[in-house]
Amino acid sequence: MSSEVKLDPWGHISVKDYGWLMRTFGIKPFNEVLDKLREIAEPNRYMRRGIVFGHRDFGKKVINPLSKGEPVALLTGFMPSGRFHFGHKLTADQIIYYQKLGVKVHVVIADAEAYAVRKMDREKTIEIGLYEYIANLIALGLDPSKAVFYFQSNQKPTYYRLIQMFSRKVSLAEMEAIYGTMEPSKVVSALTQAADILHVQLDDYGGYKNVIVPVGADQDPHLRLARDISDRFHNELNLERPASTYHMLQRGLDGNKMSSSKPDSTIFLTDDLEVARSKLMKALTGGRATVEEQKQLGAEPWKCTVYDFYMFQLIDDDKRLQEIYDSCISGKLLCGHCKRNAWSILEKFLEDHQKKLEKAKDIVLKYVDPPKF
Amino acid sequence: MSSEVKLDPWGHISVKDYGWLMRTFGIKPFNEVLDKLREIAEPNRYMRRGIVFGHRDFGKKVINPLSKGEPVALLTGFMPSGRFHFGHKLTADQIIYYQKLGVKVHVVIADAEAYAVRKMDREKTIEIGLYEYIANLIALGLDPSKAVFYFQSNQKPTYYRLIQMFSRKVSLAEMEAIYGTMEPSKVVSALTQAADILHVQLDDYGGYKNVIVPVGADQDPHLRLARDISDRFHNELNLERPASTYHMLQRGLDGNKMSSSKPDSTIFLTDDLEVARSKLMKALTGGRATVEEQKQLGAEPWKCTVYDFYMFQLIDDDKRLQEIYDSCISGKLLCGHCKRNAWSILEKFLEDHQKKLEKAKDIVLKYVDPPKF
Repeated sequence: MSSEVKLDPWGHISVKDYGWLMRTFGIKPFNEVLDKLREIAEPNRYMRRGIVFGHRDFGKKVINPLSKGEPVALLTGFMPSGRFHFGHKLTADQIIYYQKLGVKVHVVIADAEAYAVRKMDREKTIEIGLYEYIANLIALGLDPSKAVFYFQSNQKPTYYRLIQMFSRKVSLAEMEAIYGTMEPSKVVSALTQAADILHVQLDDYGGYKNVIVPVGADQDPHLRLARDISDRFHNELNLERPASTYHMLQRGLDGNKMSSSKPDSTIFLTDDLEVARSKLMKALTGGRATVEEQKQLGAEPWKCTVYDFYMFQLIDDDKRLQEIYDSCISGKLLCGHCKRNAWSILEKFLEDHQKKLEKAKDIVLKYVDPPKF
Repeated sequence: MSSEVKLDPWGHISVKDYGWLMRTFGIKPFNEVLDKLREIAEPNRYMRRGIVFGHRDFGKKVINPLSKGEPVALLTGFMPSGRFHFGHKLTADQIIYYQKLGVKVHVVIADAEAYAVRKMDREKTIEIGLYEYIANLIALGLDPSKAVFYFQSNQKPTYYRLIQMFSRKVSLAEMEAIYGTMEPSKVVSALTQAADILHVQLDDYGGYKNVIVPVGADQDPHLRLARDISDRFHNELNLERPASTYHMLQRGLDGNKMSSSKPDSTIFLTDDLEVARSKLMKALTGGRATVEEQKQLGAEPWKCTVYDFYMFQLIDDDKRLQEIYDSCISGKLLCGHCKRNAWSILEKFLEDHQKKLEKAKDIVLKYVDPPKF
């Protein structure tokens, strides 16, 4: 990716060159804080494996306060534009990890942005927000009684007041430098995202001064804007910069971007088992042209989307993952066998998850107040 | 004013050529509805005198429903950027007139816009909104128990939801065509003004489908945007176009624009009597160079800001106004004498008003919920 290409959190560019991102925007490598994190908690597999590859202020804003027993809040957002898939699970797993460390989790359903920028139907986004996103988070293990869920279009006045106030100290030229061409919908959505990230620092929302925002690498523009805004409102509103982590995006099963809008590129957590199995069996691997060749040369797991599934989702034990990797590159493990192994883990997970999901759907309205129209 | 000049509701251009405005934007002459209005109510002096010179949909949205006993709402906004003066009283008198006709009055204090666009201090705007604008409206005779007052930064989610939704169907190019160069603050403020104008049509706010917005001629851009938006959300949100009236702006005492920021250009309703008298005595008149000349040629009331005061504010009786006009142009009435006459009326008004204002200040918080920070 050349340096004049802008990151587009609205999804039109996929970020592959994470090094470019770090060099250009000053994101720090996550491995520099891993040891310090180990003093208070075991890093999760995304952290251990470099999938969470970068951060800003993680030591200062997350590890330090947690080690002193000081409050930390997490803010994460989901765009309710389609079904919940394994790409979303990557974020979900992380927020559950943080909740277990005592971090107060806030989840925003970006329904206003889905409506205005993605031009989605309102009722549908609310439905998806409730029964795809929030329900799946609960089914995955997020404790809803300790989390805060909200919709962008159903908040308190102090939240909207931030959007109004932020508009004073951000120029259109600056937004265009961050996001590219702007329209009113993007102006409002970008300021709303800044309010999402920063509002938990208001007394009205708990007054959390340490905030962690774990995002995919393509979402950094929102973080940069929120950091700049927090500086400008430091005196007036007592806002502090949020910390953030950046994770790589799991590739789709076809080797391209994983996306709800290409159902074969991913597995949804609500896919029928037969559909899920079929998708996995058709997935792009790093196998060779013939069995003979593969036995001789070994396969290439770095090209394999099934290996991605092991690494991101299916295998938590690093040793076990290493064994798979070794038997793959040595040519001992062939793709058909490997896919069947993956499926047996995935099948168990999906069966179990889908049962939990039905229960979660029944209780979701106990924990969130959806907009009325 | 040439036709390529844009109207600027943020106050950088004063509108003098009302004919241009009507021709360019299709505003209809108000006198075409005067007779029909007389069937249900006596027009107020601004209407009778052509100060309210234009309208959109006044017959259909105001006279018709009122004559059938159907509900009509009024929405008007005040920018809390300075002290309440006689320019504001022109709007105040009109909303009181409508309230007496049974129209439900909604008054918005544009504190978000004052903060973001005018870069005012927040606490100060809230103070001014409460104790200058709302208190003066009550002192002038608006019945607060029948009116709705609110601040832009302290509203229900359904109001803010409109801003989010409107952003989807308005382009930046279109906003620039209406308002000139845009910045995020102006984008948010313009959409907020549209929400101000249209939100009373929501069930949450009374579901008024007939809405009248009486404004100064320079505020038409906001009306045009709100009308376009109501068309685009007619199906989705059941919004209808608002009606509007347009009034001329009273000139300042120096013959230029009346403005809070030039204290000598206007008389504030809280001015000390001695200060008010001194301003009036120094006001620009249409008098001749010498008394002799004036006795011979008569004076020019159309150039006279004291005559403006009579016409806009001090004399409600049209016959009495005509007598002043006649004796002015005939050279019988000299400026010094005329100013003293004006002052005697104004002095009585101010003395009485300032007493009422103190009482109004004491009760204002019973009728509005100001933002907390």
